[in-house]
Amino acid sequence: MIPAKAYAAYDASTPLAPFDFSRRSPGLQDVQIEILYCGVCHSDVHQVRNEWGGGSIYPMVPGHEIVGKVLAVGEQVKKFKVGDLAGVGVMIDSCRVCKHCTNDLEQYCVEGMTGTYNTYERDGKTLAQGGYSTQIVTDEKYVLKISPKLDLKAAAPLLCAGITTYSPLRYTKVGKGTKVGVMGLGGLGHMGLKFAVAFGAEVTMISTSASKEADAKKLGAHHFLLSSDDEQMKKYAGYFDVILNTVSARHEYHRFLNLLNLNGTMIVVGLPSEDPQVKLFSLLSNRRSLLGSVIGGIKETQEMLDFCAEHDIVADVEVIPIQRINEAYDRMIRGDVHYRFVIDIDSLRN
Amino acid sequence: MIPAKAYAAYDASTPLAPFDFSRRSPGLQDVQIEILYCGVCHSDVHQVRNEWGGGSIYPMVPGHEIVGKVLAVGEQVKKFKVGDLAGVGVMIDSCRVCKHCTNDLEQYCVEGMTGTYNTYERDGKTLAQGGYSTQIVTDEKYVLKISPKLDLKAAAPLLCAGITTYSPLRYTKVGKGTKVGVMGLGGLGHMGLKFAVAFGAEVTMISTSASKEADAKKLGAHHFLLSSDDEQMKKYAGYFDVILNTVSARHEYHRFLNLLNLNGTMIVVGLPSEDPQVKLFSLLSNRRSLLGSVIGGIKETQEMLDFCAEHDIVADVEVIPIQRINEAYDRMIRGDVHYRFVIDIDSLRN
Repeated sequence: MIPAKAYAAYDASTPLAPFDFSRRSPGLQDVQIEILYCGVCHSDVHQVRNEWGGGSIYPMVPGHEIVGKVLAVGEQVKKFKVGDLAGVGVMIDSCRVCKHCTNDLEQYCVEGMTGTYNTYERDGKTLAQGGYSTQIVTDEKYVLKISPKLDLKAAAPLLCAGITTYSPLRYTKVGKGTKVGVMGLGGLGHMGLKFAVAFGAEVTMISTSASKEADAKKLGAHHFLLSSDDEQMKKYAGYFDVILNTVSARHEYHRFLNLLNLNGTMIVVGLPSEDPQVKLFSLLSNRRSLLGSVIGGIKETQEMLDFCAEHDIVADVEVIPIQRINEAYDRMIRGDVHYRFVIDIDSLRN
Repeated sequence: MIPAKAYAAYDASTPLAPFDFSRRSPGLQDVQIEILYCGVCHSDVHQVRNEWGGGSIYPMVPGHEIVGKVLAVGEQVKKFKVGDLAGVGVMIDSCRVCKHCTNDLEQYCVEGMTGTYNTYERDGKTLAQGGYSTQIVTDEKYVLKISPKLDLKAAAPLLCAGITTYSPLRYTKVGKGTKVGVMGLGGLGHMGLKFAVAFGAEVTMISTSASKEADAKKLGAHHFLLSSDDEQMKKYAGYFDVILNTVSARHEYHRFLNLLNLNGTMIVVGLPSEDPQVKLFSLLSNRRSLLGSVIGGIKETQEMLDFCAEHDIVADVEVIPIQRINEAYDRMIRGDVHYRFVIDIDSLRN
């Protein structure tokens, strides 16, 4: 067993606090990683606060945007050697034999993928603990290679916010000539914007807040649509081929569906706490569709990381010591972050 | 002007009654059709009873599944000659110049297509009246050719129920190897079932009523799924590539979205009077999508009619005289029809 320090939630209502525990010993195919940075995802807060249907397991070490350095590898490990940079994202295992796992789409594993935390590993008894921690031990099949070209702290959010937006933009074939709207300029939104621009699309930031325009354009947006302005919304009716909807606050879907052109698709990656009522007429007009998407498979996540290294894409981050995590949660909920908090895990070691 | 007999609604709450009026005189590009049969669509009832947002215009002659014989043609008409069989469906005009009209997708005309009734023609003053009538005058561009091979009375519903299901099944590339579920065995559902089978798909009828199984199989369904049976629903989880949802009664969309396989699509063509709440998690799982679709363009409608002539496909109909139309409405609302009422318009002439 490997002793690890962490910050954990002990129940739904108290702040995260220091936690000492043991990781499982590395097996033949495992990679033992010294965690250097871990991104802070909205879903961390939802799970810590038990806001997703009551299934939270405590004590819970959150974090699934993990990057670090390989400390040791099992005898059968082929992809990694000691000293390599490595990352772990939203999943650490899956059944490996179903039609989706064998097709590089482990995130849609028929038996359900194994999340990085707030669940049990596939042995049914080892509690999976996430990246707000000094170490992690993971099967190499679910570990990603991180190029040294990338700014490591800013690469951490690629493991969730990055792949969650990259994958559906690829799936909907966004590229040169595509008109893309991105709803919401947060952790996911700012990554989606960067990817859509990198793919060659014409990208419009769609936001309820006029103050976001300058930031959006700095990030590469070609246009800005203020969604609270009905005149502007009318002007953009039927305009977009793809809308990436990253908004998890409650909103009226039909107002944004109406912005889609013929055969247009709204990708849903933001999950409001209450499911929306969808005006079907907005879907019928222009033969629109509403598409869900969950992260990406391991192969595609690696492809995304390599694409980022090649195109110099990382997240815009604010680095914090772990001791400020509870304050960061509150700020994130208020949207007060540009655009992702990343924990400097060294702060746990001292 | 051309005198025509019809049945019309005079307001939202009284039964349809006899009505004499005049059609516009045929122009150079118009076809004057002696109507022989007209199908009865659910949307007739909704519009007659003013159930769609209060925009109904009276007196209203409903009917947009129209077949008949050409009585006269304008000087510039090329596609038709006197004596030809001809049909008119859900639209009689559109702007003709927008990006969708010029791409054979007039149903998505940017300015809005002109419906066959309950609207004004593009001159803004001629009230468009539908097919519960002895005659109709329509621009040849929006008139379809009907093969004499088809049983004419049973071909009428192809103009709406037919194309509404044919078009999205083509759009989603249903064919050999596709697993298709059809929800609802009514006018649309029974046509969707016939088309999916004709395209070579493996087709499952999904119904709340066990009594529909024998009928569905007679129509060509390979399997039957009783949706009120949770065990059967569990067995079919993640099974279908495409679900054609023709149900306009209220239902829980997520129970049926969960039946979709990876990248599966639920096509929505049934419009419940209340918009559904959609559980986004059901869309995220398996990267599913919810797709809307409106009839089909004129070119595709002709393609569908030709396909039907070639493959001997028509609707299953119950022919009624116009005098029984109000009773037919009540029976249709109860689902008491196999599977489409068609009015024998000769009953208007005597």
